Amino acid sequence: MLRPIRGFVGARIILILIQCVFVLSAVEVAATVHHFTWEVGYMFWAPNCIENPVMAINGRFPGPTIRAKAGDIIHFDLTNKLSTEGVVIHWHGIRQIGTPWADGTASISQCAISPGETFPYRFVVDRPGTYFYHGHFGMQRSAGLYGSLIIDVADGLKEPFHYNGELNLLLSDWWHLSVHKQELGLSATPMRWINEPNSLLINGQGKSNCSIAAATCNFTELQQCAPEVLRVKPKQTYRLRIASTTALASLSVAVANHKLVVVEADGNYVEPFEVDDLYIHSGENYSVLIKTDQDPTKNYWISAGVVGRKNKTSQALTILNYESVHAGKLPDSRPPDTPLWNDTIRMRSFVEQLRGLNNSPLPPPAGAHRHIVLLNTQNLYRGQTKWALNNVSLSLPATPYLGSIRYSLIDAFDANVPLESFPNDYDIMAPAANPNCTVSSGVYWLQINSTVDVILQNANTMSANTSEIHPWHLHGHDFWVLGYGDGKFVDGVGDKNFNLKDPPLRNTAVTFPYGWTALRFVADNPGVWAFHCHIKPHLHMGMGVVFALGVERVQGIPGQALACGLTAKLFMNTKF
Amino acid sequence: MLRPIRGFVGARIILILIQCVFVLSAVEVAATVHHFTWEVGYMFWAPNCIENPVMAINGRFPGPTIRAKAGDIIHFDLTNKLSTEGVVIHWHGIRQIGTPWADGTASISQCAISPGETFPYRFVVDRPGTYFYHGHFGMQRSAGLYGSLIIDVADGLKEPFHYNGELNLLLSDWWHLSVHKQELGLSATPMRWINEPNSLLINGQGKSNCSIAAATCNFTELQQCAPEVLRVKPKQTYRLRIASTTALASLSVAVANHKLVVVEADGNYVEPFEVDDLYIHSGENYSVLIKTDQDPTKNYWISAGVVGRKNKTSQALTILNYESVHAGKLPDSRPPDTPLWNDTIRMRSFVEQLRGLNNSPLPPPAGAHRHIVLLNTQNLYRGQTKWALNNVSLSLPATPYLGSIRYSLIDAFDANVPLESFPNDYDIMAPAANPNCTVSSGVYWLQINSTVDVILQNANTMSANTSEIHPWHLHGHDFWVLGYGDGKFVDGVGDKNFNLKDPPLRNTAVTFPYGWTALRFVADNPGVWAFHCHIKPHLHMGMGVVFALGVERVQGIPGQALACGLTAKLFMNTKF
Repeated sequence: MLRPIRGFVGARIILILIQCVFVLSAVEVAATVHHFTWEVGYMFWAPNCIENPVMAINGRFPGPTIRAKAGDIIHFDLTNKLSTEGVVIHWHGIRQIGTPWADGTASISQCAISPGETFPYRFVVDRPGTYFYHGHFGMQRSAGLYGSLIIDVADGLKEPFHYNGELNLLLSDWWHLSVHKQELGLSATPMRWINEPNSLLINGQGKSNCSIAAATCNFTELQQCAPEVLRVKPKQTYRLRIASTTALASLSVAVANHKLVVVEADGNYVEPFEVDDLYIHSGENYSVLIKTDQDPTKNYWISAGVVGRKNKTSQALTILNYESVHAGKLPDSRPPDTPLWNDTIRMRSFVEQLRGLNNSPLPPPAGAHRHIVLLNTQNLYRGQTKWALNNVSLSLPATPYLGSIRYSLIDAFDANVPLESFPNDYDIMAPAANPNCTVSSGVYWLQINSTVDVILQNANTMSANTSEIHPWHLHGHDFWVLGYGDGKFVDGVGDKNFNLKDPPLRNTAVTFPYGWTALRFVADNPGVWAFHCHIKPHLHMGMGVVFALGVERVQGIPGQALACGLTAKLFMNTKF
Repeated sequence: MLRPIRGFVGARIILILIQCVFVLSAVEVAATVHHFTWEVGYMFWAPNCIENPVMAINGRFPGPTIRAKAGDIIHFDLTNKLSTEGVVIHWHGIRQIGTPWADGTASISQCAISPGETFPYRFVVDRPGTYFYHGHFGMQRSAGLYGSLIIDVADGLKEPFHYNGELNLLLSDWWHLSVHKQELGLSATPMRWINEPNSLLINGQGKSNCSIAAATCNFTELQQCAPEVLRVKPKQTYRLRIASTTALASLSVAVANHKLVVVEADGNYVEPFEVDDLYIHSGENYSVLIKTDQDPTKNYWISAGVVGRKNKTSQALTILNYESVHAGKLPDSRPPDTPLWNDTIRMRSFVEQLRGLNNSPLPPPAGAHRHIVLLNTQNLYRGQTKWALNNVSLSLPATPYLGSIRYSLIDAFDANVPLESFPNDYDIMAPAANPNCTVSSGVYWLQINSTVDVILQNANTMSANTSEIHPWHLHGHDFWVLGYGDGKFVDGVGDKNFNLKDPPLRNTAVTFPYGWTALRFVADNPGVWAFHCHIKPHLHMGMGVVFALGVERVQGIPGQALACGLTAKLFMNTKF
């Protein structure tokens, strides 16, 4: 049995949302404050019809969909109901301007919340867009700790495109192997890879050993995995909000017989362009418009399939249900094919179509104050497999950087500053002659308000003829994507083709195999910010860097964010 | 292939032990200080020939065997190398006189140690005996976080019995189901029981799908599960130190053809008595003497099998190897049979033979100042299965009691004091008419230096004709076991038969099905102390109480023990 969703504005009704509207006493401010009381715990659940422990918020998987308006204030009181694990939640795409301590990154912005304790996340959602939230401690995102976060335009304002209704697709991948075993295997010597996901999920629902398309799935026993049918009226325009919180998979999303018009990427408007299918990598968010202009007596498949890795996981499927048709009626056409997994040219041509909408902010024309090249390599460290940047693999410290830097606790992390480039003679097309890297918790110190260019330089892994996709995500800022190139970036050549006219602003961008990606951002948000590959096992194996800027200006860090490690020692007036 | 252990004093060589001997500067004190630097982390291991994650200390499972002399000072610097879980270690049987903050009980004596952090356990091992240590947070003991702790008599002193050598048996039970799933199942609605263990382990080694006795096990592939053969010389007396850290199983231990003479229970000497086999429940420790007076051209089975629960788990076996015989030669006789699982009379008659050795401390003759009766029942709370005492199931608070009571943070736990008895008309022989209990973090406040009697009153579970064994363990103190009885304890009748002449001192004692057990202790060690069923899932389901006494006198709590919850808030001079 397929399960239709009710209502027009898409997504599930948020039962637990307690929304209070009040006017702050300050004369000049009138903001809506949303209060959420959340509890994080494990529960048994069958996202792909097979039961396993999943991380849930208030007993729901995925977590509740949050909806607010630009300018609203969000108060999340997050209580850890896990038994022995700490927890944090990162609000992916929210820049946390002025509230870097609310970014929800363990070891970076705060101490993990201990079992039984509550942390007060307080921040402004300053900008409309399609976002999501997720765990950012260990592999907890892979355990299912995520949900959608949708910000509408402020009252009285309009989106720069028209639509009649919304549909929400939160995409993820799912393993039967517990995250604890995944994590242990990734750290083992030799490393044990997690392999390809057992299932792909759309809004937390998938399948593992049956085919919806062939109608061999029986959902009556386990409604938890029954696809969430998306109901539409004919002859309307719908906004599909699509976010990918996959641990590993890059995906291609298509709606059979319907074109997709891309209008938003990571909370920024883009010049609309039409595609048959959307490439989306882990950490990315898009809005696409579809017209329900097809035969209204039929239903249509919506598919998401793996690209970029040799595909061993079945497509996730759900149904676009024209309202006059029974939701359980299967489409009479096949689900859309997933494009060839290794067609990098097609994949890259998709992101190269992304252009900032007219009047979008442009990068500072004077160029960058700082030029950081990050060579992406797979390495070994004492027999463990690592990912490294300029031969340095990130190891997070016990005391979160935001507190240790704010209070000058220089013993809290490595004083050595990581490198800003790699040797000229490094051959990115072959495995490194010496695969060994170093491990460090060192920080890149950025000048406040400086313009920073980052070149992400991809390379061969430790296996010959292999280079992987890495979607890089920046916290606290958006960046302009200035361009992509094949092979090694050459200074004075690669930058000649930078798009300074209408580059898209984003928080996540991909490096393609053996290629480079050029980003620019203005480091104007005081705090300590992760910049990392959004593939969970890659981050676990050290694929990230840390940017610190203007930390001396940061105010209002709540005590809970500092109640661990050396900051606890500093602030607790008792014997350590 | 069987694996002999080298050396005469038994147990493995402690490679990581860095033992420094120095004389403290104070004129009156000359104590040996042992320094240990431990890291706790998961690793893949195959205790029963099947690989699973286990909790290891410095890469070893079980953790290193600790050996010191009475009066020595122990310094453990314990670093948490887990990814997202906190950790603590409890030193089971060490009373922590004057150092209640080093008892290693999360939510009671200290904040759990967060990932990456180090906690300094510092305490005196004041008394010789056979002990062990184990995790005391969530179900981490069941994950393999345990090891032996053996304290010899101080220099110049002698044990009150003679022996030529020692052998060490640390007993445990093992599940293939991860502790995370076990824990989640136990908390689920309805509860999902963990079922019987897949294997029993001796010194961390067992088997699951083969029989050593029938020689069908092939250990060459996985040495991790090869039994640790115990090598002996003929015509000698050996001390077997036997500790049980099982999560669930009560065990019977026997050495084929050899009698056991019991001489020590939980670090206290007992009047020697001879048995064919030893009953040992979770949390208990014994020393037994054996004489190697059998045919020295043969080897002999040592067996441990489940009693008290309908036996679904194979015996754990290893070999007593007379030194002139090849270690791999299997005994030509069968392993000792495990006694009938439900022969409670035989099981009780074993503990009733335990008598304090002549000149052992005796209970205060004046009787008790306080008389607490604890009815042991299985209950429901909002659909969850619980274990309760006088209808109250223990729920541990986020702020450890030792800190919250020491600093009068009365909001940290329930102010309601739990009941000291149960209604007269409660029928212990039948399931309760109303199975519902309450849940509380309330504390029993004991007068310092008062004498306390506790009657553990067993009862029927929620299923008809079922009553289970519960081995109760007291922290911070030993108690005298005054007696056991069948049915309901009747004041003025049951106490008539109390043994006040030579009751054994212990830290763990059993309540038998439908019976009662009477304990007495002098509450003379300031601190907050758990008293609980040592069966891990039972404690997880609330089967414990908390005693607080003289907390205002406690000094020297390290800051790390307070760096969470309301004590962190109190002591951190920054905004919470």
